[in-house]
Amino acid sequence: MTDLYQLTMAYGYWKQRRADRLATFHLFFRKLPFSGGYAVAAGLELALEYVRQFRFDEDDLQYLATLRGNDERPLFEEEFFDYLAELRFTGDIDAITEGTLVFPNEPLVRVTAPLLIAQLLETPLLNLINFSTLVATKSARICQAARGEPVLEFGLRRAQGIDGGLTGTRAAYIGGVAATSNVLAGKLLGIPVRGTHAHSWVMAYGDEREAFADYAEVMPNNCVFLVDTYDTLDGVRHAIEVGQDLRKRGHQLAGIRLDSGDLAYLSIEARRLLDDAGFAEAAIVGSSDLDEHVIQSLKQQGAQISIWGVGTRLATAYDQPALGGVYKLAAIQNEAGQWEHRIKLSEQRIKTTIPGRLQVRRFLQAGQVAGDLMYDELLGEPDVTAIFDPADPIRRKKLPANLESESLLLPVVRQGEVVYASPTLAEMQARTKSQLAQFHPSVLRLLNPHSYPVGLDKNLFRRREQLIREAHGWREEV
Amino acid sequence: MTDLYQLTMAYGYWKQRRADRLATFHLFFRKLPFSGGYAVAAGLELALEYVRQFRFDEDDLQYLATLRGNDERPLFEEEFFDYLAELRFTGDIDAITEGTLVFPNEPLVRVTAPLLIAQLLETPLLNLINFSTLVATKSARICQAARGEPVLEFGLRRAQGIDGGLTGTRAAYIGGVAATSNVLAGKLLGIPVRGTHAHSWVMAYGDEREAFADYAEVMPNNCVFLVDTYDTLDGVRHAIEVGQDLRKRGHQLAGIRLDSGDLAYLSIEARRLLDDAGFAEAAIVGSSDLDEHVIQSLKQQGAQISIWGVGTRLATAYDQPALGGVYKLAAIQNEAGQWEHRIKLSEQRIKTTIPGRLQVRRFLQAGQVAGDLMYDELLGEPDVTAIFDPADPIRRKKLPANLESESLLLPVVRQGEVVYASPTLAEMQARTKSQLAQFHPSVLRLLNPHSYPVGLDKNLFRRREQLIREAHGWREEV
Repeated sequence: MTDLYQLTMAYGYWKQRRADRLATFHLFFRKLPFSGGYAVAAGLELALEYVRQFRFDEDDLQYLATLRGNDERPLFEEEFFDYLAELRFTGDIDAITEGTLVFPNEPLVRVTAPLLIAQLLETPLLNLINFSTLVATKSARICQAARGEPVLEFGLRRAQGIDGGLTGTRAAYIGGVAATSNVLAGKLLGIPVRGTHAHSWVMAYGDEREAFADYAEVMPNNCVFLVDTYDTLDGVRHAIEVGQDLRKRGHQLAGIRLDSGDLAYLSIEARRLLDDAGFAEAAIVGSSDLDEHVIQSLKQQGAQISIWGVGTRLATAYDQPALGGVYKLAAIQNEAGQWEHRIKLSEQRIKTTIPGRLQVRRFLQAGQVAGDLMYDELLGEPDVTAIFDPADPIRRKKLPANLESESLLLPVVRQGEVVYASPTLAEMQARTKSQLAQFHPSVLRLLNPHSYPVGLDKNLFRRREQLIREAHGWREEV
Repeated sequence: MTDLYQLTMAYGYWKQRRADRLATFHLFFRKLPFSGGYAVAAGLELALEYVRQFRFDEDDLQYLATLRGNDERPLFEEEFFDYLAELRFTGDIDAITEGTLVFPNEPLVRVTAPLLIAQLLETPLLNLINFSTLVATKSARICQAARGEPVLEFGLRRAQGIDGGLTGTRAAYIGGVAATSNVLAGKLLGIPVRGTHAHSWVMAYGDEREAFADYAEVMPNNCVFLVDTYDTLDGVRHAIEVGQDLRKRGHQLAGIRLDSGDLAYLSIEARRLLDDAGFAEAAIVGSSDLDEHVIQSLKQQGAQISIWGVGTRLATAYDQPALGGVYKLAAIQNEAGQWEHRIKLSEQRIKTTIPGRLQVRRFLQAGQVAGDLMYDELLGEPDVTAIFDPADPIRRKKLPANLESESLLLPVVRQGEVVYASPTLAEMQARTKSQLAQFHPSVLRLLNPHSYPVGLDKNLFRRREQLIREAHGWREEV
């Protein structure tokens, strides 16, 4: 799983005897998704599994041997395949754990390894981290809008591929959903599964009341009736009638589900009907193209929904279906084995990269976060007096002395061996929750959030400015 | 791979002895994606592979046995697992072949099978057909904007999961892309792969000219230099210098790639530099958040790009990342074995389903399509005099007599056996192309297209209206 240019570059590094120079790459994103104030890191466990299994199999090499260049001759020479056959990941990886709140330019993953293999990891790492971080973030936002009420993930049918569904469900769970409809995610990942019946159950009977009654006979303690196949409020009345029969037999109506129409109006009316009939305990599950904004709006309208079913808009991160993370070279050893910084310029200042071997230090003040400071381990210990905005040196945030702090990037691979025991998914979900509690509500606001201070320490800021000047100077000489 | 409610419903059908009643379900979408005028069917081969392999393994059943209801008792009884263990797909499937242009409400897949198993296929069929059809459609639109110039698919790193990348590439190829960067898609699916180098190649050297020269030494016939690592037009000059060296050694500079900045301006300037230096044959590859609208705009601005690299916006169908296809019961046998129609009402008339066992007849007039007529095989032969718009009976299109026609749904599974030999991906791509040629350009227009006539034959139209009236009548009696 990679892009062809990773292999042509690998071949080039190998031919030009640059394959073994150590290099540091950072995986990061430049802009928060969904116009939001934060992102939730996810996908690391999947990435580490990929690194652990990284190798070229015989059939991979046989396929690569069939590739031809524009001259119709083999793209790669035979000896290169012998090299690839033996290739394993031998480097170091540091990464931010899943469920941690992260911000633009912070390396979610940092790879220090021989240039060739560090390059080969670009595409798979991006694929795995981008998508999971995107969906975990969307999930956290949706759960935030639901204000503690359970959110169920129903997106498999609209997910982008089978794995889009499975990986998406995993990330949604890290972000905070209580359960999923996806049985495979339940089986493989241990995520709680939920579900009752669809419109087709009612349609198969024709008569809605008979359909509910037959379902109740089979699953008397698991009845959440979908009431909108024909007429929603009639459906609620049928659910109540069957609920009364259930009660006579010693069971409880678990709830009803609304899947179309005006959810605010219908849920208020349904709640009234249920309460009047003595079913105050019955839940109302709402679904139908929900996302954080619709949920927030429904709550403002007083909708009486207590469980939120979210599908397409979560599973595909509908309003922004890609994170846009990148993987950039930031430092490399020269022929003499000395580390050199690398920077990629851009006409858009925001796209100019941050060079070095970055660590992120998060400062805390009375249990609340105060800011994230990126520094370059190649330049030694950080200067912790202030956080410099890389895009605007005038904007710097002074840090009080003696703040508590934690380093966000943890060692996860050393010399090719995974040295990190991934937490359980439930622990990751708990981390998301406890992280959210450390941030001021203004940063978490779903729209127009306050910008959390993230920047460089003075040493890295100065070094970077110098490199930008040098790079421009070098260009002027040409 | 399914949603839990499919299994709870299956359990209910089994307990209530309705599992074996034959039922017909249709998989269709209600609205064309991307505000466009057509969609390209895709994903059938994947769906058939799923049907072929459909079974519950021992570990699936062991997992299901762990599920508990609200009463903490097992959700399913043991005997049900014996039933599932033996369960195979035994029904019939008819479907529209991949690469066919399709329209709202047309069944892309029609399943006629025992109710329980037909229901179980809902989620996987939707997942597989929705995503592939979405991306094939996006791809066709992008290729249309490129007006015959090659489009390369570069989206793996931003795709939704690994399989999102692989399945997405497959669908993009059906829609018309010439090649992909995705090596796994090359290996597993035989799709042509392309790629040269990334910014990191240049950054690893520092000096851009040296980086190009070293790449040229390794791959002299495969040089498409990425020129925007530092300054784009300086990059073009370096590419030209290295191209001149290449030429002396008997090779040709294949091209350059622009990946940022103002692609219209830069490509025109780059073309001028290349032409002035005698490299009129060198291609200019353009990439950077391209989609059909950006490509169309660049062409209108006279951009000198001859190969289009498209990533995120194709692989994720960025502006509409889900198709919204549904799978609805349309007919079912009653206890006596007679077929009954089923309809799902909705307050939105567009969401009221079309009952029956549908076939789509496409009419052709002098090689161009004249309209699609849906009819119900349960009602016998179609009335081919006119196409009725299901949403508005006043809008009917009369069909001339003796038009040529073809049935779009082909038998693909009979009594559980796949009876359809899937064409190759190249054949599917050719089908997309030949289908597009049958439609009037106004239907293919990327924005505000003309609406192609799709509707019901008179018999189905009347039957449906009657069912709608009956359903409302039945509700009034309650």
